[in-house]
Amino acid sequence: MPPKDLFHDSVKRALEKDGWAITHEQMPLSFELGDMYIDLGAEKIVAAQRGSEKIAVEIKSFVRASAISEFHTALGQFFNYRFALSEQDPGRELYLAVPSDTYSSFFTIRLVQNMIRTYGLKLITYNPKLEEIVEWIR
Amino acid sequence: MPPKDLFHDSVKRALEKDGWAITHEQMPLSFELGDMYIDLGAEKIVAAQRGSEKIAVEIKSFVRASAISEFHTALGQFFNYRFALSEQDPGRELYLAVPSDTYSSFFTIRLVQNMIRTYGLKLITYNPKLEEIVEWIR
Repeated sequence: MPPKDLFHDSVKRALEKDGWAITHEQMPLSFELGDMYIDLGAEKIVAAQRGSEKIAVEIKSFVRASAISEFHTALGQFFNYRFALSEQDPGRELYLAVPSDTYSSFFTIRLVQNMIRTYGLKLITYNPKLEEIVEWIR
Repeated sequence: MPPKDLFHDSVKRALEKDGWAITHEQMPLSFELGDMYIDLGAEKIVAAQRGSEKIAVEIKSFVRASAISEFHTALGQFFNYRFALSEQDPGRELYLAVPSDTYSSFFTIRLVQNMIRTYGLKLITYNPKLEEIVEWIR
């Protein structure tokens, strides 16, 4: 099992411990284009529900060598997914899940904090080993 | 020479034909973090000047199999580079350069047009073979 799936499973279990029901292990996200649909390449977006709250979670491991490269892609995906979601499933909030140690070491820098504030990114930080949510940042 | 560099050279020559002087073949973009600098991994940002106008150009080839994957990354890079640039070199405008056929086939879709409008992306479309600027979209 590649490391990516370990993080994916870890976030799912962390959400379940937090009282969420996983409704889609892999939520398809596409975008209508005339009669066709463009697949947004959202391989691993988890959808979950708790009471009347519905969320979609883009799970990132930040195991790649370059945090900044992974952040470039995660940020672009977040914008595109959020827009597609607003049409496909309005009312479902998109979150970016990042390991809590990545949050402490990288997401606290001014560049990243500015992006979060300016563009209204919502985040979940999680502990991959304990399989627990550390913080909701909205 | 990898295809990536062919596109890079093509855009440089297209800008020169359009009356721009290339001031940096590879403009370094970094972000201050206390006493350190984070390299934003902007390998190939071209800086150019024409009269009092100063621009930085993020050059994309869109030769990868998945246009949407390349767009995710290009979009995230554009946001991060634009923010870094606004601090490092205020007054220099960032443009995303894409081949004109990619613009016609992919950038015209509603998802991409929405991102351009909502977030104020500026684009240059270019013809890689003729080494000419086709359109400035600002």
